[in-house]
Amino acid sequence: MRLSRAFLPTLKEVPAEAQIASHRLMLRAGLIRQTSAGIYAWLPAGLRVLRNIERIVREEQNAVGAQEVLMPTIQSAEPWRQSGRYDAYGPEMLRLRDRQDRELLYGPTNEEVITDIFGQSAKSYRELPQMLYQVQWKFRDELRPRFGVMRGREFLMKDAYSFDATYEAAVASYRRMMLAYLRTFQRLGVRAVPMVADTGPIGGNLSHEFLILAPTGESGVFYDAALEEQDWLAQDVDIEDDRSLETFFNQVTQSYAATDEMHDAQAWEKVPEAQRREGRGIEVGHIFYFGTKYTESMGVSVTGADGAPFHPQMGSYGIGVSRLVGAIIEASHDDAGVIWPDSVAPFRAAILNLKPGDADTDAICEQLHAADPEAFLYDDRSERAGVKFNDADLMGHPWQLIVGPRAAKEGKVEVKRRATNERFELSVAEALAKVQTA
Amino acid sequence: MRLSRAFLPTLKEVPAEAQIASHRLMLRAGLIRQTSAGIYAWLPAGLRVLRNIERIVREEQNAVGAQEVLMPTIQSAEPWRQSGRYDAYGPEMLRLRDRQDRELLYGPTNEEVITDIFGQSAKSYRELPQMLYQVQWKFRDELRPRFGVMRGREFLMKDAYSFDATYEAAVASYRRMMLAYLRTFQRLGVRAVPMVADTGPIGGNLSHEFLILAPTGESGVFYDAALEEQDWLAQDVDIEDDRSLETFFNQVTQSYAATDEMHDAQAWEKVPEAQRREGRGIEVGHIFYFGTKYTESMGVSVTGADGAPFHPQMGSYGIGVSRLVGAIIEASHDDAGVIWPDSVAPFRAAILNLKPGDADTDAICEQLHAADPEAFLYDDRSERAGVKFNDADLMGHPWQLIVGPRAAKEGKVEVKRRATNERFELSVAEALAKVQTA
Repeated sequence: MRLSRAFLPTLKEVPAEAQIASHRLMLRAGLIRQTSAGIYAWLPAGLRVLRNIERIVREEQNAVGAQEVLMPTIQSAEPWRQSGRYDAYGPEMLRLRDRQDRELLYGPTNEEVITDIFGQSAKSYRELPQMLYQVQWKFRDELRPRFGVMRGREFLMKDAYSFDATYEAAVASYRRMMLAYLRTFQRLGVRAVPMVADTGPIGGNLSHEFLILAPTGESGVFYDAALEEQDWLAQDVDIEDDRSLETFFNQVTQSYAATDEMHDAQAWEKVPEAQRREGRGIEVGHIFYFGTKYTESMGVSVTGADGAPFHPQMGSYGIGVSRLVGAIIEASHDDAGVIWPDSVAPFRAAILNLKPGDADTDAICEQLHAADPEAFLYDDRSERAGVKFNDADLMGHPWQLIVGPRAAKEGKVEVKRRATNERFELSVAEALAKVQTA
Repeated sequence: MRLSRAFLPTLKEVPAEAQIASHRLMLRAGLIRQTSAGIYAWLPAGLRVLRNIERIVREEQNAVGAQEVLMPTIQSAEPWRQSGRYDAYGPEMLRLRDRQDRELLYGPTNEEVITDIFGQSAKSYRELPQMLYQVQWKFRDELRPRFGVMRGREFLMKDAYSFDATYEAAVASYRRMMLAYLRTFQRLGVRAVPMVADTGPIGGNLSHEFLILAPTGESGVFYDAALEEQDWLAQDVDIEDDRSLETFFNQVTQSYAATDEMHDAQAWEKVPEAQRREGRGIEVGHIFYFGTKYTESMGVSVTGADGAPFHPQMGSYGIGVSRLVGAIIEASHDDAGVIWPDSVAPFRAAILNLKPGDADTDAICEQLHAADPEAFLYDDRSERAGVKFNDADLMGHPWQLIVGPRAAKEGKVEVKRRATNERFELSVAEALAKVQTA
């Protein structure tokens, strides 16, 4: 893509309303624009990041056997009355009435709707287990929306729901999701540590939050370093085998990890001192087993092998997709701008033509751009070199291909790695090989 | 995917509320479920169709240089007041108030928001032209929602917006979109004929609706057969060259085509009788040039080459993505069920194991399924053959791979083409070659 024709408006000024780095950088790098309080439009570069995150989330959901559906954003109040949450939810639920005066709401979560959809179709225990998920916009009417997409009102979430015949099967579903989550976050280029979360009246240990470590995180966190050293992608877990799932799950949960709310000083003392890590974290995921709470209250049952009806066991599993864009930036930026992990970067590389109009730089830049016009952003603008350097650093492309007139005469390109500031002077072919295969 | 584990609930009964074929078939084939009046959830098979349509729409938008953005569903009333449409829009606009009593609405279309976003960033004529699009859910509070997704309340649309410096440049943008639309619909496996539409006070001929021909269409249509014989994918149009665009556009618009609203009996007389086609059509797209209507009312201008500010010229371009699912079915079904065009089918083929548990049929089915578990739906259920035949016809997979015990003993598979009912007895390798390359 040629920057001269692209809609990638960067800002030089630091927006006054943005209090944290990710919010400032998302506005400055032209990823988002606010359209109302806590509501954002995604510009082309921001949308590319969002889509990259969605793609990885979907691949890992599919890999553990979840099937994608899509529920509407506008829901009827009816199932929420059945579950008892319509009155309980409070002012964060955006309630509305249509022209026929029917009570509707903009879904903040989807337990009620999915339980209803499942209940309409499922008749027998033979149709279990089912794991259904969606990636859909939700709305929570925050009193004080702030921090950009980190606490916006309209936000994109992946929400999954499991339906199982027995507690044991529900536990297996929970463990599969734990695996999917650890793999997802690792592929996104960030470390998210699973922390035991409050299970309320349900009890047990089947509730975990996933927190990305970042100094601006909203929660204090305490965890065993073992949890951030693991390579979850290399783990060989057989998701069809309950014993394999159990071994994996025990390995995760044996290491201490808790937010300040759930911190247990006595257990913390038992972690070897060299392994103790304290810091702050941003919640980007939550998995939760809640048994028959919704199937019971909404009257959903299927027939068991013995002919008797029973209420399926459920769990729900969320990932804050739009929030992740901000959280990744909080975890990966410097004073100059964003530092995108390769897997989510809007563009793999920027090509910086330091002297547009020069036959040598133009020729090399065109050659580089033609190699992958979709993944390479060609800065062909008639701007000073300094402007191009600043914009490329600000936008955070993993690689920069810098083409100046002197080196170009010798057929050379300067390749810069954004994260490390390493620089290499290479031929065009070598530069492409480095950027495309790294 | 194995049908025994999939969430693909088909219905035997014909749903009483569904008046037209596509609505009945979408419910029966397990594509959608209604969650409120005119609001639907998309089950896995339906979502696959929706995603296939989206993918083709995006590819053709990108091919003419449009860039994807994403605007929120919830908009502030403010820009709608500026444009004058907030009061004009009527009861189809879903209006709401948040907890701070701010006036919001669920966007039925996005001219105001995109003009605002564009205006915040664009400063100079050098940043033109721009073509921005999104694929996003919209809401129109229909008084009597019906016909399933064909006239639902929450619906998915692709909407694009062009910004140009001059009328001539705006015309070129319009022509590019005409090309993108004709290519999109052809790739979707349907014929959509562009018909001159009313331009209201703006005048000129730069407004076209695209109608898919189907007996249940809401409009009568009159058109020259030349328009459905053209292979738009084979046309060699240089989208950077205004003369090439003009030649293409003249070729489209020289043939008569109009809905009954715009029908001109005199012009119709001039179409050779053998070329005249009359029928009914479903509107699935609309392209529209409207000049400076929004840039003027919303005070958006950029600086021209002469230093003087001017209001950019705009056009907007919609495709009804969720409506297309219904429209394609209206155009392509029979008494037994849906007949999916290959490009949008949720699964390329169904594998029908007529005797699960038989060593020969099981082995062949597993072999077929392993060849492409994502694109092949394996009906491994313990159901009678008749149930499997009916469900496969109902779901409308382009191909069926029928594996019965007798043929299986000889390593043979019966391949059925859904659209033509052609049948072939083939070896496993031949069957795969036929289905995967056809």
